[in-house]
Amino acid sequence: MSSCIFCNIIQGKAPAEIVYQDELVTAFHDNHPVAPVHLLIVPNKHIPSLNEWEASDEPTAGRLLSVAKCLAEQFHLRQSGYRLITNTGADSGQAVFHLHVHLIGGRRMRFLG
Amino acid sequence: MSSCIFCNIIQGKAPAEIVYQDELVTAFHDNHPVAPVHLLIVPNKHIPSLNEWEASDEPTAGRLLSVAKCLAEQFHLRQSGYRLITNTGADSGQAVFHLHVHLIGGRRMRFLG
Repeated sequence: MSSCIFCNIIQGKAPAEIVYQDELVTAFHDNHPVAPVHLLIVPNKHIPSLNEWEASDEPTAGRLLSVAKCLAEQFHLRQSGYRLITNTGADSGQAVFHLHVHLIGGRRMRFLG
Repeated sequence: MSSCIFCNIIQGKAPAEIVYQDELVTAFHDNHPVAPVHLLIVPNKHIPSLNEWEASDEPTAGRLLSVAKCLAEQFHLRQSGYRLITNTGADSGQAVFHLHVHLIGGRRMRFLG
């Protein structure tokens, strides 16, 4: 087992309700949802945060956004709207140090958090 | 002049404090900052929102994240932390229909907005 919960989820070693997986990214329901739809989309590669992002990771970013768009459609958020959030470091409240994109929808959101 | 304010900024036809520009993306200060650092990073191509995102736009996504990381360093947010937000549609409060990533830092943020 890795010490990273998201790495364990990606590898099927920890439970999660996975909604999408391919060779670059994995998406699953957040365990502590803040909205009717709250998914996490993560790179399969362990990147602790955007601070450790490298130019060679750029193809993963495109996949993250394409998957976010598809999941927004799948979860019927295309018309109502949705927000993507990526937190880095203490001021943002990043809780798990494996880069992740929150996809949140199904309710009105406060102005920019 | 385009009817899109961000297209005009990208093309130098509307004023903005641009902090970065290359062949794919442009970054500038938000006119109504919600934090000590509040930048917008936008694709040069007019994409109204993530709903209109296409697989062929994937290289732009990588650049958006790489530029966000570099700007976070340039604006001394690497240690303290920062948040990226992309809004799509009404529930999220998207105000300008040209896809953009908010880069926010310099203060503590509320949990996920």
